[in-house]
Amino acid sequence: MTKTKPYILVTNDDGIAAPGIHALVLELQKIARVVVVAPDSEKSAVGHAITLSDPIRVSTFKKSDYWEGFAVSGTPSDSVKIAVSALLERRPDMVISGINLGSNAGINVIYSGTVSAATEGTILGIPSIAVSLTTYTEPDFGPAARFAVKMVDFVLTNGLPERTLLNINVPDLPESEIAGVKITRQGMANFAETFDKRIDPRNRVYYWMDGKKEELDDGDDVDDEAIKRGYISITPVKYDLTNYEYLDTLRDKLAENLNWKK
Amino acid sequence: MTKTKPYILVTNDDGIAAPGIHALVLELQKIARVVVVAPDSEKSAVGHAITLSDPIRVSTFKKSDYWEGFAVSGTPSDSVKIAVSALLERRPDMVISGINLGSNAGINVIYSGTVSAATEGTILGIPSIAVSLTTYTEPDFGPAARFAVKMVDFVLTNGLPERTLLNINVPDLPESEIAGVKITRQGMANFAETFDKRIDPRNRVYYWMDGKKEELDDGDDVDDEAIKRGYISITPVKYDLTNYEYLDTLRDKLAENLNWKK
Repeated sequence: MTKTKPYILVTNDDGIAAPGIHALVLELQKIARVVVVAPDSEKSAVGHAITLSDPIRVSTFKKSDYWEGFAVSGTPSDSVKIAVSALLERRPDMVISGINLGSNAGINVIYSGTVSAATEGTILGIPSIAVSLTTYTEPDFGPAARFAVKMVDFVLTNGLPERTLLNINVPDLPESEIAGVKITRQGMANFAETFDKRIDPRNRVYYWMDGKKEELDDGDDVDDEAIKRGYISITPVKYDLTNYEYLDTLRDKLAENLNWKK
Repeated sequence: MTKTKPYILVTNDDGIAAPGIHALVLELQKIARVVVVAPDSEKSAVGHAITLSDPIRVSTFKKSDYWEGFAVSGTPSDSVKIAVSALLERRPDMVISGINLGSNAGINVIYSGTVSAATEGTILGIPSIAVSLTTYTEPDFGPAARFAVKMVDFVLTNGLPERTLLNINVPDLPESEIAGVKITRQGMANFAETFDKRIDPRNRVYYWMDGKKEELDDGDDVDDEAIKRGYISITPVKYDLTNYEYLDTLRDKLAENLNWKK
């Protein structure tokens, strides 16, 4: 741990009043100066949305006597952007997004506001991590919060590769029952979506999106699989989406097909 | 081209009434059976957002005598999901998202609703492409629409690798002046964001997000660079975000740091 306390921006996608962010802040305050800038309401599954067409409002938020922060009328990405560009006294040493209520593994990484907030920190050049607790019921955020503190030390000491953040999922277990830590790749278990068609009181049709994650046996180095076995899963996530392996094949095939000189 | 006409789902993020989607549909109708399912209003920069907390409405939309489609009260990703799960008579042979008004290259790929709709098609196992025209003023969508038709033929003949879509950006030039086609990687030119702080008529502070893309010389195999030189840029985009190169290093360093057995 460095001598001067690190300055950490905490955000989330469950909204600034969510219990997961509170647990994280309480734990981080023991080792860091913490500033909280987060959406003013739940923004789950917003992906990497940003707000360009609407004005953004910022209000102060007080969590009893524990901490104060800024509530933002936008998305998790908006919150990180406006924090760094307009609200914070200086660039933070780290961005931590969480603790999310519910897993952000597999295909969920694509939709996750929690991960996108950490991505936004990374885009801004700040080492960032996303932390999720893999349950929706009666959560104890303690183990995840304490593990986040360990990861602060790790990240500030070792840094992270370019354009890379850590996506951390902590299983819903007492610390003594957590099997260990697995470095994983993003699994690709799909959602099987269904749309529940209903009729409203004014006789108009509407739909609810619903879905079930399909279990895909991707192998035991996969995020969802590690969590299922009681491990903390850490996936290094990079936001360069290029499929490098396919570049040459595509170039060759397309040149032939379109009759164009490479 | 196959004997029976392919069945193509067209969507976008500018909204079903946007001129870019109309130009695309008109051109595609010459070679395909086209069905249009798109957001009922502009949904730019929504990233991969999906709508879980609100009901989704679907209404029919008629573009004069040219075509009919479904307008969805959700995001581009929602539109693709509900089209495939609930609205279409069968799985489409391809998903085409666009033609977007404005470039979707570099860091924009992360925020793009246009690209995320094509990603959604890919997640559902359907070959998908995103098409954008790199201008905001007085667009002629013709060249981009005709190029999209060529790419339908290419994709249906050759297929695409697993979890991979094509992100196509067409420069704003007459066909005769387009320099050619470049297979590119996603550049990482950042946005330098600013937040314009204003006071509303009720004396409350609000912010507008603004920003300027910073020119980063990433090399001449980069999407933005190809466009600037008058080429059509095609980037194969893969939605597995794992940083594979970093997996082993992270595993070693973290095991040492946390004193944990690998």
